[in-house]
Amino acid sequence: MSKTSGNKTLPIIHQRAEVARSKIFRIESLDLEFTNGATRQYERMAGSGRGAVMMVPFADDNHILLVREYAAGTHSYELGFPKGLIDPGETPEHAANRELQEEVGYASDNLTFLHKVQMAPTFFNSSMHIFIAQDLFPQQLEGDEPEPLEVVSWPVEQLDLLLSQPDFTEARSVAALLLVERWLRSK
Amino acid sequence: MSKTSGNKTLPIIHQRAEVARSKIFRIESLDLEFTNGATRQYERMAGSGRGAVMMVPFADDNHILLVREYAAGTHSYELGFPKGLIDPGETPEHAANRELQEEVGYASDNLTFLHKVQMAPTFFNSSMHIFIAQDLFPQQLEGDEPEPLEVVSWPVEQLDLLLSQPDFTEARSVAALLLVERWLRSK
Repeated sequence: MSKTSGNKTLPIIHQRAEVARSKIFRIESLDLEFTNGATRQYERMAGSGRGAVMMVPFADDNHILLVREYAAGTHSYELGFPKGLIDPGETPEHAANRELQEEVGYASDNLTFLHKVQMAPTFFNSSMHIFIAQDLFPQQLEGDEPEPLEVVSWPVEQLDLLLSQPDFTEARSVAALLLVERWLRSK
Repeated sequence: MSKTSGNKTLPIIHQRAEVARSKIFRIESLDLEFTNGATRQYERMAGSGRGAVMMVPFADDNHILLVREYAAGTHSYELGFPKGLIDPGETPEHAANRELQEEVGYASDNLTFLHKVQMAPTFFNSSMHIFIAQDLFPQQLEGDEPEPLEVVSWPVEQLDLLLSQPDFTEARSVAALLLVERWLRSK
């Protein structure tokens, strides 16, 4: 029986094999047959299935908080919204609040779900729930970061300026920023 | 001599080793020492260094074009803007025009660079140049897709509706959409 995605019939996975593995990555090879008979062997990252969260915290009505953190992929310090992986058994909301406390030292009882995005569905099964966090109160949790993250306060009136910062580059932070601007316009 | 990123001193990479490899992925392990003395072993994807492009093509002033394409990572058909990797020796603009011809059968002499994003700098060195493509004219190139991509025309007046489509999920397509809306508002 064919499986469908929307109204399109998915290719058949004839074989699935793990081809490489490291401490945190697992790579699979898929032997696919498309509905037109074409066959391909595609590689993809096998997901941990954990998902991630990203938070846009409002320090007050006029300021949001970002973090500057070392990024190994680009070997650079990157400016972006606090984010983290969802722990096994945790809800996205719980993960958002936990990461907020670990990364910026604040908690929130007022989380607004904004949007859910995929990092890059061609190669990964890696979703991210984006939240707005308001009514912050100081509460610090110990995280496993090697060094304290630099917390950066940014005026809401100048959100657009973030787009021209050379270290504000991650697509998910850009999407979150523009979604927050859209949310602010709708209020 | 310490290297810096912005005004922050980068961690020292004491060792760098390839720990796993597949046909298209290479995983590295880095032994890092941060300026506060903390040490960590981080894994990251070693980039091909190729970079990628994404295009928001305007079929006319009132319609943009998207593609619906199989995504192996999520084993689903995903709706998004045409995109592709930059070939060795190719400029981003050339890649954008080539992928446009391969994926939607149109070329453009009127590309506007919109923004450059990183996919996820924590683990990858994978940039994407986002372009607007206007004044399209029919020109088809053969690509290596297993099946023709479904080309979807979308009214500019209803761009916002894309955000509620269950198969429009990729963060870079969401970012591109919102950046295009911002560009349209500025005109």
